[in-house]
Amino acid sequence: MIIPVKKRIQIFDTTLRDGEQAPGASLTPEQKIVLAYKLVELGVDVLEPGFPVSSPGDFAAVETISRMVQGLEICGFARAVKGDIDAAVRATQDANRRRIHLFISSSDIHLRHQLRKSRPEVVAAAREMTAYARQFCEVVEFTAMDAARTGIDDLIEMVEAVIAEGASIINLPDTVGYALPQEYGEMFRRVRLGARGGDSVSYSAHCHNDLGLAVANSLAAIAGGATQIEVTVNGVGERTGNCALEELVMALETRGDVLGAETGIVLDKLYETSRLISGAMHFPIAYNKPVVGRNAFQHESGIHQDGLLKDRSTYEIMDPERLGIPRSMIILGKHSGRHALKDRTAKYGITLAPTELDALYETFKETADRQKVVSDDQLLQMVSQATGQQAQVYELGEVQVLAGSAERRVAAVTVHHLKSGLETSHTSTGDGPLEAIIAAIGQGIAENIDFVGLELHSLGSGENAQAEAAVMVEWEGLKFRGTATHQDIIMAAGIAYIAACNSALLSTLALNDSTT
Amino acid sequence: MIIPVKKRIQIFDTTLRDGEQAPGASLTPEQKIVLAYKLVELGVDVLEPGFPVSSPGDFAAVETISRMVQGLEICGFARAVKGDIDAAVRATQDANRRRIHLFISSSDIHLRHQLRKSRPEVVAAAREMTAYARQFCEVVEFTAMDAARTGIDDLIEMVEAVIAEGASIINLPDTVGYALPQEYGEMFRRVRLGARGGDSVSYSAHCHNDLGLAVANSLAAIAGGATQIEVTVNGVGERTGNCALEELVMALETRGDVLGAETGIVLDKLYETSRLISGAMHFPIAYNKPVVGRNAFQHESGIHQDGLLKDRSTYEIMDPERLGIPRSMIILGKHSGRHALKDRTAKYGITLAPTELDALYETFKETADRQKVVSDDQLLQMVSQATGQQAQVYELGEVQVLAGSAERRVAAVTVHHLKSGLETSHTSTGDGPLEAIIAAIGQGIAENIDFVGLELHSLGSGENAQAEAAVMVEWEGLKFRGTATHQDIIMAAGIAYIAACNSALLSTLALNDSTT
Repeated sequence: MIIPVKKRIQIFDTTLRDGEQAPGASLTPEQKIVLAYKLVELGVDVLEPGFPVSSPGDFAAVETISRMVQGLEICGFARAVKGDIDAAVRATQDANRRRIHLFISSSDIHLRHQLRKSRPEVVAAAREMTAYARQFCEVVEFTAMDAARTGIDDLIEMVEAVIAEGASIINLPDTVGYALPQEYGEMFRRVRLGARGGDSVSYSAHCHNDLGLAVANSLAAIAGGATQIEVTVNGVGERTGNCALEELVMALETRGDVLGAETGIVLDKLYETSRLISGAMHFPIAYNKPVVGRNAFQHESGIHQDGLLKDRSTYEIMDPERLGIPRSMIILGKHSGRHALKDRTAKYGITLAPTELDALYETFKETADRQKVVSDDQLLQMVSQATGQQAQVYELGEVQVLAGSAERRVAAVTVHHLKSGLETSHTSTGDGPLEAIIAAIGQGIAENIDFVGLELHSLGSGENAQAEAAVMVEWEGLKFRGTATHQDIIMAAGIAYIAACNSALLSTLALNDSTT
Repeated sequence: MIIPVKKRIQIFDTTLRDGEQAPGASLTPEQKIVLAYKLVELGVDVLEPGFPVSSPGDFAAVETISRMVQGLEICGFARAVKGDIDAAVRATQDANRRRIHLFISSSDIHLRHQLRKSRPEVVAAAREMTAYARQFCEVVEFTAMDAARTGIDDLIEMVEAVIAEGASIINLPDTVGYALPQEYGEMFRRVRLGARGGDSVSYSAHCHNDLGLAVANSLAAIAGGATQIEVTVNGVGERTGNCALEELVMALETRGDVLGAETGIVLDKLYETSRLISGAMHFPIAYNKPVVGRNAFQHESGIHQDGLLKDRSTYEIMDPERLGIPRSMIILGKHSGRHALKDRTAKYGITLAPTELDALYETFKETADRQKVVSDDQLLQMVSQATGQQAQVYELGEVQVLAGSAERRVAAVTVHHLKSGLETSHTSTGDGPLEAIIAAIGQGIAENIDFVGLELHSLGSGENAQAEAAVMVEWEGLKFRGTATHQDIIMAAGIAYIAACNSALLSTLALNDSTT
């Protein structure tokens, strides 16, 4: 049997440069350093940590990362002007392996309206600045900005010029997210075959997602001969962002046999890297974001849920556990059937007689018709009511939280421990009302459960508005998630936290019950 | 000059059926009716409002929409079993134009693991049920579920069988989001040319976005001969969702010359439809969502902002105003330059002397380095400080909001009217703390500004956690947006609301100043 050799694609991560250019997503130099370490763990090949000339903070970040972060190539970004190149050269000088990444516009639109220079002037600048950068650094990547909107002959002329001066990586970006896959792949083919020296260098793609085509265009570039793809985690970046690292990597992983290509990304770091960067950038991940979104491995319709319980391959093409995602939880909602209910309650060690399941299903359907999602916590309350089986450990009682313009916010809560009947009251202050309520509830939980994180969304105010909260906790090395929806956004957070604690404690109990 | 005729693509909207299957996104029958009217306005060609047999609520929604909503074809969804078809036929019987949409799995994986039937049995069922449906309805669309993972000969066999029984629209979905564009387009070509009667029917694509390829696959299907594309607004749907209506439509709109195809969608309804559905489903839209996301027409880097101010085509391929999006606002952040500051303040009728601009820029940079985004409200405060020019109308003073488990929440606020120096106090209650604070502030605004909507996100709790709020208001027929970030999620909402009111009042003042 012949195993065809897959082309190894270099993953060039620009989360900390182009990604950080996402409006509202800027990072401090300290955050960039933390994230750079994470990106090394993730296995990216080239890291672009910033644009050194753009600010002292960005310079410092690139400089520090070049000194401290080992195991990948560090890239200094620069316009094709001496000041930028000097800054990029200085900032990256302590890197083990480094490259200078020069860019200048190549399209008529950019030359006419932005640069306001003639094509010969721009080509000359590209040539001279490539030669200038090569004096300081062996590896120079050259980007013809807006390549996808550049006439092919103009593009070849510019690429030939910089190859002649020693650029060894040619990046042909779709700067404005305009290209279609076939034409984008074709551009690589034509430049590679048409430019003098075109077969002596390597090619890079850099795509934006304005029309939802960034991943497809990147794959088309690989088919056209590109061996490096520039990406960002979560697809953050200017406007609608760049090609998402996790989508490209999983497309290659899932369909690598057809695509004939693979990456060196450590798959089981994908999910935690995505969450870390989302938090640092205050950039929420869409529920329906491919690969790392809340719903990526969740299935609502009864038909899909039934199929999954029979065999996961019926409706899942990737294994979430390989990506570091806690095992696919089917969200319970109005489309869920008895199968899904039975399966979920069994996870908490609850065995239901057929009549009990029927009774539970009826209550469940009523609730599910009224609200979007039935959280585990609510389900366990229903089990208690329908069967008399105790399926909760803690319950949130009275809550008062004071928010506003004062320096500290204050929360008072009552927590019931159902088994013992114990009811305790706790108060706490915090910088925000969420911090205050989480701290107060935490005092009422006897077990040593760590609060890991919280996501909270609200899309309205008024009678129909519901806030949706998800809280993650850690208990004995395992992560558990609790969710809640409530018309009071602060209550949603508190209930989700209690739900997460209950999930943790009950699945441990279930585990203990089955092993003793 | 010859203008080539573009192929008119039918937009089949399944937001209310497959979209509603997005975990957590379920809709009430009443919501479906409201949204159906909106989708008619948007200009979709075919509407699939639900799965009649799945629940009495869904049946009622399809039935009511069939009775009330005119101007498009209504589709009843059904498994290839009599009970489902009967329900779909009954639910749609009052529609002006209708079709029955039958589906059965065609892939080996689904046959073996889910249906647990042999291929001859499944093909026979497809054939019989198509014939059965045709007795009641002239137009039958047949879906070979999981077509993209079906062997081509098996697929052709099934398609031939249903064409012979009178199915006139053949949908070949990528049910699990597995296909690559080239192979997906090729599948359409092979079925169309290979199946007996294959050229007598029309073809439909239905793609899921698990690998980020739903739009590209839909475009490939068009190239392969499909004339109908099944989509959802905001790309909601099972797991990571369906092909997004707005992305597909704008790809065809922007690149229609190359693609040779167009739709009948009313572009300037895209944005408001997207927001309406996001709110109804409680499904937030990602900042970097193509076409309709917060950042879709926002530009952070100084280079891009400079280019845009010279000529929008340098970095924008679509005109946001054509989509009904308020004119592209450049988000101000640490990458913004003097150009952008001057441009923004000018919108509020503020003219800055060069030294004033320098002073403002310095203060701005300090703030921008500390936080992600500088809101308009903050900028106007800085202008006041740097120049003494009054650039705010209202300011939020003291705030107290009580949230918790009591039935009603209460808010007390002080609002300053800066010009008059008037300071007034207001209290209100609400179902949630956001409703309470918005109502209390509203009492302090003398002008008749309508509160339109609110989006609120928080990704953490603790000292670094910041909540981000955006509030939309309407004032004299125009919409204005205010944003704020704050460690207190309730405060963020209040400040964003005041900012939105200031934006409205100041741009009106600016307008008045320049016309008088």
